[in-house]
Amino acid sequence: MRRFAYLGPEGTFTEAALRMLPEASGADAELLPCRSVSVALDAVRRGDAEAALAPLENSVGGGVASTIDELSTGPLLHITREVLLEVGFAFALRPGVARDAVKRVAAHPQAEAQCRRWIAEALPDVEVVAAASNAEAAASVVAPGSSLDAAVTSALAASRYGLEIVEDNIHDHAGAVTRFVLVALPGEVGPPTGADKTSMVAFIGDDHPGALLEVLTEFAVRGINLTWIESRPTGGGLGRYCFSIDCEGHLADARVGEALSALKRICADVRFLGSYPRADRVEPTMRRGTSDADFEAAAAWLSALRRG
Amino acid sequence: MRRFAYLGPEGTFTEAALRMLPEASGADAELLPCRSVSVALDAVRRGDAEAALAPLENSVGGGVASTIDELSTGPLLHITREVLLEVGFAFALRPGVARDAVKRVAAHPQAEAQCRRWIAEALPDVEVVAAASNAEAAASVVAPGSSLDAAVTSALAASRYGLEIVEDNIHDHAGAVTRFVLVALPGEVGPPTGADKTSMVAFIGDDHPGALLEVLTEFAVRGINLTWIESRPTGGGLGRYCFSIDCEGHLADARVGEALSALKRICADVRFLGSYPRADRVEPTMRRGTSDADFEAAAAWLSALRRG
Amino acid sequence: MRRFAYLGPEGTFTEAALRMLPEASGADAELLPCRSVSVALDAVRRGDAEAALAPLENSVGGGVASTIDELSTGPLLHITREVLLEVGFAFALRPGVARDAVKRVAAHPQAEAQCRRWIAEALPDVEVVAAASNAEAAASVVAPGSSLDAAVTSALAASRYGLEIVEDNIHDHAGAVTRFVLVALPGEVGPPTGADKTSMVAFIGDDHPGALLEVLTEFAVRGINLTWIESRPTGGGLGRYCFSIDCEGHLADARVGEALSALKRICADVRFLGSYPRADRVEPTMRRGTSDADFEAAAAWLSALRRG
Amino acid sequence: MRRFAYLGPEGTFTEAALRMLPEASGADAELLPCRSVSVALDAVRRGDAEAALAPLENSVGGGVASTIDELSTGPLLHITREVLLEVGFAFALRPGVARDAVKRVAAHPQAEAQCRRWIAEALPDVEVVAAASNAEAAASVVAPGSSLDAAVTSALAASRYGLEIVEDNIHDHAGAVTRFVLVALPGEVGPPTGADKTSMVAFIGDDHPGALLEVLTEFAVRGINLTWIESRPTGGGLGRYCFSIDCEGHLADARVGEALSALKRICADVRFLGSYPRADRVEPTMRRGTSDADFEAAAAWLSALRRG
Repeated sequence: MRRFAYLGPEGTFTEAALRMLPEASGADAELLPCRSVSVALDAVRRGDAEAALAPLENSVGGGVASTIDELSTGPLLHITREVLLEVGFAFALRPGVARDAVKRVAAHPQAEAQCRRWIAEALPDVEVVAAASNAEAAASVVAPGSSLDAAVTSALAASRYGLEIVEDNIHDHAGAVTRFVLVALPGEVGPPTGADKTSMVAFIGDDHPGALLEVLTEFAVRGINLTWIESRPTGGGLGRYCFSIDCEGHLADARVGEALSALKRICADVRFLGSYPRADRVEPTMRRGTSDADFEAAAAWLSALRRG
Repeated sequence: MRRFAYLGPEGTFTEAALRMLPEASGADAELLPCRSVSVALDAVRRGDAEAALAPLENSVGGGVASTIDELSTGPLLHITREVLLEVGFAFALRPGVARDAVKRVAAHPQAEAQCRRWIAEALPDVEVVAAASNAEAAASVVAPGSSLDAAVTSALAASRYGLEIVEDNIHDHAGAVTRFVLVALPGEVGPPTGADKTSMVAFIGDDHPGALLEVLTEFAVRGINLTWIESRPTGGGLGRYCFSIDCEGHLADARVGEALSALKRICADVRFLGSYPRADRVEPTMRRGTSDADFEAAAAWLSALRRG
Repeated sequence: MRRFAYLGPEGTFTEAALRMLPEASGADAELLPCRSVSVALDAVRRGDAEAALAPLENSVGGGVASTIDELSTGPLLHITREVLLEVGFAFALRPGVARDAVKRVAAHPQAEAQCRRWIAEALPDVEVVAAASNAEAAASVVAPGSSLDAAVTSALAASRYGLEIVEDNIHDHAGAVTRFVLVALPGEVGPPTGADKTSMVAFIGDDHPGALLEVLTEFAVRGINLTWIESRPTGGGLGRYCFSIDCEGHLADARVGEALSALKRICADVRFLGSYPRADRVEPTMRRGTSDADFEAAAAWLSALRRG
Repeated sequence: MRRFAYLGPEGTFTEAALRMLPEASGADAELLPCRSVSVALDAVRRGDAEAALAPLENSVGGGVASTIDELSTGPLLHITREVLLEVGFAFALRPGVARDAVKRVAAHPQAEAQCRRWIAEALPDVEVVAAASNAEAAASVVAPGSSLDAAVTSALAASRYGLEIVEDNIHDHAGAVTRFVLVALPGEVGPPTGADKTSMVAFIGDDHPGALLEVLTEFAVRGINLTWIESRPTGGGLGRYCFSIDCEGHLADARVGEALSALKRICADVRFLGSYPRADRVEPTMRRGTSDADFEAAAAWLSALRRG
């Protein structure tokens, strides 16, 4: 039996994303819903699951702070895979409640963020109560003694918990996508596929102005494009940040290795979080002089010079 | 009567921060608690309040997405002031509940984030239920028929709602600070004070790699330090971001004006969000050649050249 | 009568270049050969000539130090025009001398540089004597009592002074071009033509490492290409340099004006040397956000912000 | 017998500089004056001399084009040493000539450049005739049948050739210094001394605008200061340049090696010209993260990551 932890409860987008992975949808796979990202990741750290899936960012709601912070500062795990899932939201009632009578609505903050305009127009006077997940939002509405009348949640969760969907696709931006990452214990990094991504966290040392510019320059001089950058506080006070960075390329690529080493030298610390295939299979555009062959030729030339 | 909206309900850190402002603590000030940042800001947009206070970032929890998104893409408002408040958290029970019997705990996600370690150790098996604010967390525990036993919330909110504080200062990082901003309808920007900050949002145009590097370079060449940068999705898809940026200096400063103009030229759009006194009163370190006098002398020289 | 000074004597490439200018080849033009660049430029400074033509760089020999230094640190003159002339060299004997008997050959150092390979092969054992110009090289061979047997010089000069050309086009690189500049007293700068060049000298202040990088960055951030850069010592000691720079664009262009102003601010000094039509008529490639219209729109936006 | 070639004839500053080297001033050293830099360097290439000394730049006159071009594009030689010599000039007459009767004056172009102001004031109407060296200038004045009356040359050369020095120290800038380089056949590079310099030539590939900025950035990101940069045409046409660059540090230094490799990758070609002790013994200021220890630690970290 292979066990995969995920941000639960059942019915979350994370579960739907996890089921997209062949290894997690077979008969020998057991899916383990967890009540928080921390709990899911701890299942991997303790060996209770071989991997865990967690949301990292959404194209509307932005970065998922709990996942980012766990990966940045919690006990080390590596990303081995990314999964993209188009997400959408529905408005669903507790059976028996009339739409006009709705006063309190449960919604996960990301769901609320992605349906902000719709809520402002359709539910101007109702109170929105934060839920821990879309599934939890649905579940809380039908819980015994609940004071909640409805939920803004996924159609999946609404169905699973027996709510009545009165309007689907209420999100403000069509085509919103959530990026999930599969994380496992650190180990050998998978081989390059030609369309890879590398994730890391750069901890800025003395918070000197211009530190971020220096970090970005280390990528730019080696022709490496960044696909994501997110600043997070280190907890050391306002003005002290670390940067979660995804770049094109693989740990095994010479240019990526040299850039990582450079960050290691100029930053207070760098945490490597994994190299893995890009879900969108986009191959990097290579700038002149940055291929592995270019690096090898230059290294050979330098060695010859040093031998004299 | 002067009316100030804020992220309520009563007892939030936002209220405490608002009361630090002289204009909001006098007898002629009326404070208007709102159930969300959007509602508080709309009160200003509609003219129901002359200004609103909202949390923008916390030194542990990071940026407050709802405030950032409202300021970035909602109807335009300007920041006129910033307020820093040290925040801390307490663990408080519903009267009559024994500590050992606690099963469900209410907490605002920022509170949970800032007490993550303490919760993991002290409350390993309890369920944490998300609340919309610290005050709401406390209120929900004492609400009739509540299934919640306790809250991780501010001591202020715990007291106001009649909870029993069993442990105070349970946050993982001492000295956590939240930065709040006072926003008002766009108007004349206040004069420079010598220790100012300027806020803006840069919308990257064609999402070309290196766009962020170009943006940062426009500040660096003019000797302007950034104090904050936060990427947020534009909603147009993964990989499409805008950047919320705070820099040293004031709109009236020549170097800041030229940098803003440069961003306006090279970005798809720039939204100016205000110049206002720094709460920490730190004055900028000026690099050679970037003072107003330097800019004036250079402009006069250029004019003379152009006249011939 | 319009008088034009040039680096003489008669028969130099400079004269040939000057005769390419319509205003200098008409019946009302008087050409004034001068024995050095300094003397030619002084003729303009004193009002004895309305303009002077001097060589600035050659595509093989490089920058012409005397012209660069005169323009950089001598009394101010402005470049109003550039002229390109393809230059070539011939080997010519004093009448009556047999080729095998040649022992001493006159050559201007630039001519020697451009025929270095040919001289090494064809005249391995002869002595090369430096002459002040190609014309002077030819003249010196036929001067009474001369100990010189031949000259490496222009075909024009060889003919004019009565030498026998035994081999033409002996230069190592085909298509060598010299760029000459027409200089006049500072005055109103001519209007932009759409394919212009701007010349300047940047004096680095405190010789801090990275100063040149900063200078280049000021052009790069404004999308301005450099067409020429030459370092020259300031005379203040090894390691102290100024930079002669030609960039695309015109003083009247917004991006060029802002870059010049920036240099004025960050350098110890900047000397503007003129904006004038490019001889090759190449139009600049404009980067997004750097046109005059872009600058105007950004300035209008900034003004509106500042008015409030 | 150890043979050292130099730019002659006897009495040049180059000879004086060569005599400052212990190995060239002993009894077993033979000094070989050559009539040009090319000839001196060829003596080394052919094995006729173990090394040659040639002037590379002067703090007033600038780069010495013939030396730079020979080192950049001639058969490969390495610099093993640099020598600094303070240079000054005197005005000296042919015995028997009265100062008022002087009409023609011999001077090496560098000498003329460094005495330009003095010549303009003291000898406004005389003709200055270019000589190939300071020694040659003096020699030519006393040559039988010479039409030259005087020389601007070194006091050493004036004395050696029997001229009468009428005024010494006539150079415009006090303390002018010439930097000479000792070159030898390529071989093992000497060990680092802690205060070294590395010379190279970078050939820009496709002459894209911004290429120089990219080259400088490769040094800047690794905290390496440049001490000299000189652009020289490649002979391929106006606008096509290579750059002679001296930087702080030694080939054996990790940061210098990585920067050289980077140039090798992004340039059309790079020619390494040697690492050797700085004559001024100035030690580099090291930026954080650029020491050999920093590079080693980062490389070890990267290796561990790649092993998994």
